[in-house]
Amino acid sequence: MTSTAVRVQTVPSFIEDAWWTPDATSLTERNSAEVRDASTGETLAVVSTEGLDVARVVDYARTTGQQALGEFTFHQRALKLKALAQFLNDQRTSLYELSARTGATKIDSMVDIDGGIGVLFTFGSKGRRELPNSNVVVDGPPETLSKDGSFLGEHIYTRIPGAAVQINAFNFPVWGMLEKLAPAFLAGVPTIVKPATPTGYLTAAVVKFIIESNILPQGALQLISGSARDLLDYLDYRDLVSFTGSASTANKLKSHDNVVHGGVRFTSETDSLNAAILGEDAVPGTPEFDAFVKSLVTEITVKAGQKCTSIRRTIVPKALVNDVVAAARERIEQRIVLGDPRAEGVTMGALASLDQLRDVRSAVETMIAAGGELAYGSLDAPRVTRADGTVDTVADGAFMSPVLLTWENAEAIELHTIEAFGPVASVIGYDDAAHAVRLAALGAGSLVATVCTNDPEVARELVLGIAAHHGRVLMLNREDARSSTGHGSPVPHLVHGGPGRAGGGEELGGIRSVLHHMQRTAIQGSPNMLTAVTGVWHTGADQRFDDAHPFRKNLATLQIGDAVRSDLRQVTLEDITAFASTTGDTFYAHTNEEASAANPFFPGIVAHGYLLLSWGAGLFVDPAPGPVLANYGLENLRFITPVAAGDSIRVTLTAKRITPREDEEYGEVAWDAVLHNQNDEIVATYDVLTLVEK
Amino acid sequence: MTSTAVRVQTVPSFIEDAWWTPDATSLTERNSAEVRDASTGETLAVVSTEGLDVARVVDYARTTGQQALGEFTFHQRALKLKALAQFLNDQRTSLYELSARTGATKIDSMVDIDGGIGVLFTFGSKGRRELPNSNVVVDGPPETLSKDGSFLGEHIYTRIPGAAVQINAFNFPVWGMLEKLAPAFLAGVPTIVKPATPTGYLTAAVVKFIIESNILPQGALQLISGSARDLLDYLDYRDLVSFTGSASTANKLKSHDNVVHGGVRFTSETDSLNAAILGEDAVPGTPEFDAFVKSLVTEITVKAGQKCTSIRRTIVPKALVNDVVAAARERIEQRIVLGDPRAEGVTMGALASLDQLRDVRSAVETMIAAGGELAYGSLDAPRVTRADGTVDTVADGAFMSPVLLTWENAEAIELHTIEAFGPVASVIGYDDAAHAVRLAALGAGSLVATVCTNDPEVARELVLGIAAHHGRVLMLNREDARSSTGHGSPVPHLVHGGPGRAGGGEELGGIRSVLHHMQRTAIQGSPNMLTAVTGVWHTGADQRFDDAHPFRKNLATLQIGDAVRSDLRQVTLEDITAFASTTGDTFYAHTNEEASAANPFFPGIVAHGYLLLSWGAGLFVDPAPGPVLANYGLENLRFITPVAAGDSIRVTLTAKRITPREDEEYGEVAWDAVLHNQNDEIVATYDVLTLVEK
Repeated sequence: MTSTAVRVQTVPSFIEDAWWTPDATSLTERNSAEVRDASTGETLAVVSTEGLDVARVVDYARTTGQQALGEFTFHQRALKLKALAQFLNDQRTSLYELSARTGATKIDSMVDIDGGIGVLFTFGSKGRRELPNSNVVVDGPPETLSKDGSFLGEHIYTRIPGAAVQINAFNFPVWGMLEKLAPAFLAGVPTIVKPATPTGYLTAAVVKFIIESNILPQGALQLISGSARDLLDYLDYRDLVSFTGSASTANKLKSHDNVVHGGVRFTSETDSLNAAILGEDAVPGTPEFDAFVKSLVTEITVKAGQKCTSIRRTIVPKALVNDVVAAARERIEQRIVLGDPRAEGVTMGALASLDQLRDVRSAVETMIAAGGELAYGSLDAPRVTRADGTVDTVADGAFMSPVLLTWENAEAIELHTIEAFGPVASVIGYDDAAHAVRLAALGAGSLVATVCTNDPEVARELVLGIAAHHGRVLMLNREDARSSTGHGSPVPHLVHGGPGRAGGGEELGGIRSVLHHMQRTAIQGSPNMLTAVTGVWHTGADQRFDDAHPFRKNLATLQIGDAVRSDLRQVTLEDITAFASTTGDTFYAHTNEEASAANPFFPGIVAHGYLLLSWGAGLFVDPAPGPVLANYGLENLRFITPVAAGDSIRVTLTAKRITPREDEEYGEVAWDAVLHNQNDEIVATYDVLTLVEK
Repeated sequence: MTSTAVRVQTVPSFIEDAWWTPDATSLTERNSAEVRDASTGETLAVVSTEGLDVARVVDYARTTGQQALGEFTFHQRALKLKALAQFLNDQRTSLYELSARTGATKIDSMVDIDGGIGVLFTFGSKGRRELPNSNVVVDGPPETLSKDGSFLGEHIYTRIPGAAVQINAFNFPVWGMLEKLAPAFLAGVPTIVKPATPTGYLTAAVVKFIIESNILPQGALQLISGSARDLLDYLDYRDLVSFTGSASTANKLKSHDNVVHGGVRFTSETDSLNAAILGEDAVPGTPEFDAFVKSLVTEITVKAGQKCTSIRRTIVPKALVNDVVAAARERIEQRIVLGDPRAEGVTMGALASLDQLRDVRSAVETMIAAGGELAYGSLDAPRVTRADGTVDTVADGAFMSPVLLTWENAEAIELHTIEAFGPVASVIGYDDAAHAVRLAALGAGSLVATVCTNDPEVARELVLGIAAHHGRVLMLNREDARSSTGHGSPVPHLVHGGPGRAGGGEELGGIRSVLHHMQRTAIQGSPNMLTAVTGVWHTGADQRFDDAHPFRKNLATLQIGDAVRSDLRQVTLEDITAFASTTGDTFYAHTNEEASAANPFFPGIVAHGYLLLSWGAGLFVDPAPGPVLANYGLENLRFITPVAAGDSIRVTLTAKRITPREDEEYGEVAWDAVLHNQNDEIVATYDVLTLVEK
């Protein structure tokens, strides 16, 4: 511990709803780490958790955190995420300043900071649109397990009863935390964040704003700035660890006794050797070729190539290797200005630390020794633009020029296994599509691949060939080249994570990632019991046929199971004919007795399905103005028994699912609708979707 | 190796589509094992894989097996499962004979043999009903990722490119294999089965029938009878291991380098200390009390209690502990006849082996030492009915009487952690519902629990309290006591597996278990590219407006993207009024200008949604007889923009998804339907479901 270091600030932890820093006198070189500005080497802070009792952190999450989060529904938590996103949106200026110290350019910072806030907005919205306003998620339709319908099965999700521990990488200190916090919080699971040391001060700054906002309930978020110590020793099957970082650390954590024996839910997202495949049709001069080269240069220069999703292996038709290298060189030379992100005009910043720079150079050297040829760039210290605008080589800055390697042997093992986590990619040639698929698969599991072609058949062959080896595949062509979010950018709507080397985990992916924080449980029972547990009315459960029509009830009085049953109404041939004539739906089954009888499903002329639906509404509706505002849709309609002229129908409508909106004066009510005929056979079943006042 | 053993048959393996047995002269006591009849101790067979090259087994699955299975669609594979189920159904007599040697009674054998065949039937049916007739599963709706709709995201599942290795427990030699084979096969993934040694001869007999049936393609199934040797050394992220058995073996396998570093997909289902909770309302004399006691006795006597799902912890209101024990005692004494399953009248057989008997007795002794009291049963050798009908104690048979333990301390750690894998359960008392939940959770993750109550509020509190600790919860009450499939029986429709001690895995669960054998991949691209990869038409992708109406095309000629667009048709106030009058749907929004204008969503009187739907059909239909047979349903209907009197609508109908049926002369076609108004605003969107001739 140098005397400089102890004078700088210690990055605080946030534990049990209070800020915590270690006793300054207890700090030594062994139990703390210095953090430096990536471009200048200036010491910024000290990080240490010396003396922190992590058992208490876990316990606080499991007790106070679980308790406090459990008092809100999915929708209420989603609204908190939205409010948090709005709050953080106003704090971006100060976050950008800190972010520049990590070596991030303005665009790099946008990806991290605005990207992270964007995830909160997305989950704030999806949580209300796609989840019920309760604490139980029903997964899939009920399964009838007995002939008489008295015994059903179904699946529900309920939150895991522990903590969501996130262990993050240094490259996205803001997004890395928020993309995991959002789904955990929405699920109702308290989060413990352990950011990577080199950039954790930026994470701590965001946590500071989050706490200031006073939006999250007690215990929902704790931050460990520095070593997580023996944290894993206190976790069990109730908890989840989501790790982002190197494969070696992931493997160490995965071997922990509590993961192997204790059932800790462990997911990891580790760097992978992501591929970009250029189709044979995408020759120079095509929009696809240009988009491909642009993407390659973007991926190795944004964040100085320090992205687990960057392109590492560029797989192109053999004849085009030189064209791709030449085009990439041209673009780099035109566009890329290396330097301190605080300097005007700089488009590519430093690596996060000198350690990182050493690692990347060493990886490139190993690849060169294994047959890689330096087709562009150099391992020498590059000339860079300093913060003051001067241009020179910088000893304390972690700068490196972009590097492209080519390979005589496209199957060299080092090319497919060594990752230089910086501005480095290989360009190799393939013989045919099957060969391109084989080469991509040599990455042994990747987060993402790009397939660049304008030929749908080529896209289909390549994508289906490589899909099982990848978590995400981006198809790039002239149609989406401008609108694409890009190879390297996970989006909150889609899963992030891949098999094999990529860690085998899944983050993001919309509501899927919320469900990862919940336990799926099969439940079995009678319709009444499934109704009681899920809060959704099930066919066969009790119905209440009150005097009051359920359309007279607002959300405060309406209950699931409230129902109305109509009388029978007879359908005549004249009705069918008139309906055909006014709607124009003269399909032969409604107009031609002989032709309809020849149809395998009809006895002769039958009523239109749409006639039955329309009459059904006529039979169940209570027409006067009231709390039911609109029928906004319909789901799961199935016509079961045809209705011939002379048959009659009646309808039964039952309140099935009630979803009050938190921020509107109304909510959704789904009604189970069943049409029966005069013989009590089921004619049709469907769900009527309505908006009803609170 | 005794001289008796070498004279008996060696259980064969089935490798690379040929039967394999080790060289008899190479067998020693170390590299082989004898298998004995559970009731008589007679040596039945020898098991060994001495000299087997398991690397070749894995390679054969990944090459020949993957290739052969890849030539079929989900529906074609589902039909093969159905055929296989029918074939095996005819072989049950000989399987029952073998099964009796494992100590299984007729009912035990039914659970195993008929249960396993039942899984094949279920997946044969579900595979055709719930999966597309292709090789790609689309997961969830597309997500629009650009404002202009040119860039979308979606998720697909494609099969994992390796082998599905199943390592099974001794207690269900038939079901254990078939419940894992069915989803793997349906996914298109070749299976390698490694059954447990004591009962693997029965598994081998089933495999023999499967091979004789000639229904499965090459490489789809391989059997390793005996040690799996160094099998895991050859697996990687392309492969899946599903293990059923003891937690200690599961942990050993989970620690294997290829699981930790290599990304082998590993799921385990291990025994757990499953609970059954009796509600406070379920006092003696209620149907719930009777059903609860019946279930307890069934669970500890079927398969002699050797089920990973058996009830081990009976959690009842404190005041009812003695009542439950007394009622269980009475039922055991009335119903249970212990003996050789081949003897008339025997209702409970032997444990699988003398080793097993030793283990169970030892576990009970440890529990007694820790405070458990023997409330029913004994550890002495019981008197049993021999095959010849005589009754005596038997030295070579693995027989044990049912045992019930009670505990002074309901939270004794041994009670919640020691599993006696035999006819043994504890009965403990709880104070209130919250206490019952805490006691159940002390099992630290279980496969299944029963909640027995007729009070919906109690059910809700208990079920939601324990759900996250369980893979399945059965609610037992008077409504489903007769129709329930029971506490201990996983059903193919629902997931089997639980968190924590139960292994954290998921098997069965309908199509969910097929997807476990597939990789989920996010794909991004333009609507045309998503259409090409998924085989499902996406909004924004090219449409073909041919001269021929798409209703004139059969499945052989119809292609996704084939479309028809109608002219505009104006809706008048008279139309709306007439529709209200004929259908009876006089909801105020269609009949009362003032009231409708006061509604937050409507400009004044608007057309009925059902009018729009009906007219839509009139606008898109091609009425003459043709390949389109019927409109059997409708999905995802949303009304977007209201249609007032004077507005006009037009419809665009596009073939979206085509699913030919393998065993019918027709198939399903889903059509994307969009209604626009005269300003090209979207009025409504929905999917029309039709049956169309091949």
